[in-house]
Amino acid sequence: MFRETYRSHLTGARTGELATAHGVLRTPAFVAVATRASVKAVEPAGLARVGLQAVIANTYHLHLRPGEDAVAALGGLHGFSGWHGPTMTDSGGFQVFSLGAGKEHGVGKVASIFPGDDDAPRARGASLVKLSEEGAWFRSVVDGAECAFTPESVVTVERKLGADIILPLDECTSPLHDRAYTQAAMERTHRWARRAREAYRLLADDPTFPNPGQELFGIVQGGAYEDLRRESARVIGDMDFAGFAIGGSLGRSKDDMWRVLDWTIPALPSDRPRHLLGIGEIEDIFAAVARGIDTFDCAAPTRMARNGSVFLKGAPRHRIHLRNAAFRTDDRPIDPSCDCPTCAEHSRGYLQHLCRSGELAYYRLATLHNLRFLVRLLDEIRDAVRGERLAALAAEWGTTLG
Amino acid sequence: MFRETYRSHLTGARTGELATAHGVLRTPAFVAVATRASVKAVEPAGLARVGLQAVIANTYHLHLRPGEDAVAALGGLHGFSGWHGPTMTDSGGFQVFSLGAGKEHGVGKVASIFPGDDDAPRARGASLVKLSEEGAWFRSVVDGAECAFTPESVVTVERKLGADIILPLDECTSPLHDRAYTQAAMERTHRWARRAREAYRLLADDPTFPNPGQELFGIVQGGAYEDLRRESARVIGDMDFAGFAIGGSLGRSKDDMWRVLDWTIPALPSDRPRHLLGIGEIEDIFAAVARGIDTFDCAAPTRMARNGSVFLKGAPRHRIHLRNAAFRTDDRPIDPSCDCPTCAEHSRGYLQHLCRSGELAYYRLATLHNLRFLVRLLDEIRDAVRGERLAALAAEWGTTLG
Repeated sequence: MFRETYRSHLTGARTGELATAHGVLRTPAFVAVATRASVKAVEPAGLARVGLQAVIANTYHLHLRPGEDAVAALGGLHGFSGWHGPTMTDSGGFQVFSLGAGKEHGVGKVASIFPGDDDAPRARGASLVKLSEEGAWFRSVVDGAECAFTPESVVTVERKLGADIILPLDECTSPLHDRAYTQAAMERTHRWARRAREAYRLLADDPTFPNPGQELFGIVQGGAYEDLRRESARVIGDMDFAGFAIGGSLGRSKDDMWRVLDWTIPALPSDRPRHLLGIGEIEDIFAAVARGIDTFDCAAPTRMARNGSVFLKGAPRHRIHLRNAAFRTDDRPIDPSCDCPTCAEHSRGYLQHLCRSGELAYYRLATLHNLRFLVRLLDEIRDAVRGERLAALAAEWGTTLG
Repeated sequence: MFRETYRSHLTGARTGELATAHGVLRTPAFVAVATRASVKAVEPAGLARVGLQAVIANTYHLHLRPGEDAVAALGGLHGFSGWHGPTMTDSGGFQVFSLGAGKEHGVGKVASIFPGDDDAPRARGASLVKLSEEGAWFRSVVDGAECAFTPESVVTVERKLGADIILPLDECTSPLHDRAYTQAAMERTHRWARRAREAYRLLADDPTFPNPGQELFGIVQGGAYEDLRRESARVIGDMDFAGFAIGGSLGRSKDDMWRVLDWTIPALPSDRPRHLLGIGEIEDIFAAVARGIDTFDCAAPTRMARNGSVFLKGAPRHRIHLRNAAFRTDDRPIDPSCDCPTCAEHSRGYLQHLCRSGELAYYRLATLHNLRFLVRLLDEIRDAVRGERLAALAAEWGTTLG
């Protein structure tokens, strides 16, 4: 399903084509987060209009509402949502983390370095998850009902949801977990991966599911420990998954993140695609692509848009905050060089007014811009990889390859 | 600015063309409510796509935020919002009512017959408005600051906002006001209308304002009292306004509403357009058009959409409620005969999921459908007026001409 179209001589970067049952992803590619089968504030036609290539929905949330049977009855995720391009589903493993240890530890995937920029709950509290060898028991955030996830049940749910690429149940550990816990969790995740692979094989030929072309990826865990990451990449890499995702704790700093990728990627089969879960800051994108990441997802660009923070190359952190009083009568678009529908039609002054007034039209306009910005950034990055100019492009963006 | 293109022999209905500085409105026409220069949840390009002809913004709300000077600096309402079609601004008179007597009396414009379907506050409370001969004093709902509106200041604010059609400050009385109060308020509204007319004349040739083609309409008041309505129509009708709006209390029943129109419209100059403020239920539209109303605005269709209630001809009250469990796996669009972007792409089942999940994408999709529905209904109505089939069309819609 994956074809490498160019491999850099200077870095670990590559370009490729990831063929799915719903079209080909040109990689490296940004995958937008559509937790409940909707990228927040933007309808699928709008996603297509800004050139977005793929979305990732969440198995846990869709299982709770509307339920996988309802999604399947409406044609699977594609028929259900009207998004006709490539899709992925995350497994619920991140929810095992964020409702469990993330809540107990009060941290996200990377401890304390991105305050407000990830999905982890900020307030500490008791875990809402119980884990055993068999699987994970949650309380539903919708109605409080108990809800069990096993590696097998998650694959069944995902077969019904019908995404093009599905991920097995894993345990995403916290940066504050110690080595012993991280190792035990990793080993359980490996056993779960084998069970998921078997369940997937048994269901693979069942024509009742909405997407026969669906592929299962494996997830590498191991926290920020070198030997564990190398072992996890080797074990998961040997299981003949169609591709691989890198999940779990990425340590306590950006440098820790890059090291995790440096340990992991060389140990994975190079003919398969590599997805980095939940990372998408601009400097992260350059560093991850330079290490051979093909796809990545992140909720931050869309969440930032909703909070008033929109991308502008060259501004501090390549963002401006629309609530800033300086923009009140600014008649320029967010980015005069942007070709998104928002920049074509609306000024910073009007967007500030909509944002400050809480007008619903604001959220879509700001989100379309941030999505278009990332789509164009990845277009530039693919060109730079093929032209062996990735480091120069990173420098142009005020960052490095890490 | 108004040209009657057909006058019915059978009813008071007519078709016409209302020429503004930003295009021609084919009448009868629905005007969407864009209180803060945004139809809730839909960007201006989306409004154009569903064929909407005009919007009405609110002087009071835009004065408070972002302020008329900010709007003027960004090119007036058209440049500011990116909506390039005809616009109106209401004067703030309705806020005099809803923050004042409406709050004291706990009622809307029509007492108790449309629970939940108008903008009046439901809870009774102390008035937040003080009225005098000079004007009205409000507390800002944004920051609590005191804010004075006089007939002259409102015209100045509206000149800066730059809508194509502006309305003078008036006092919208409550259905629970007695005859003496209603008469005194009407007479003051007449004096305010004269002051507004004079202020408008003094500012008409000032090139610093963003819309030199702006026209001032008069507002008829008089509550549900026949002699007062006839007097107000005569007095306001004699003041050489470019058109007329019918405001204020419309009584306690639909029959009261029709009677108010029956008293008012024949007393107005027939060569000028007639706008009905704040009314837009389907049966109201037929009855109002049959009496000679050319344009009308109503927030209900867009608010209903946000609450899950979407139009479907033939359903009870021509609406279905998307939260209804029966739609969970319904793969049909809201209306299979509808040509809106929502019905082209999305099923009732998906829309229910978005609505129940509070997904932001829901609000735009539902609102686009309800707007398109009204645009097409008014297309049908104009055809029916020209074909002398308005009563038959009303019957087809399960209603009458009232």
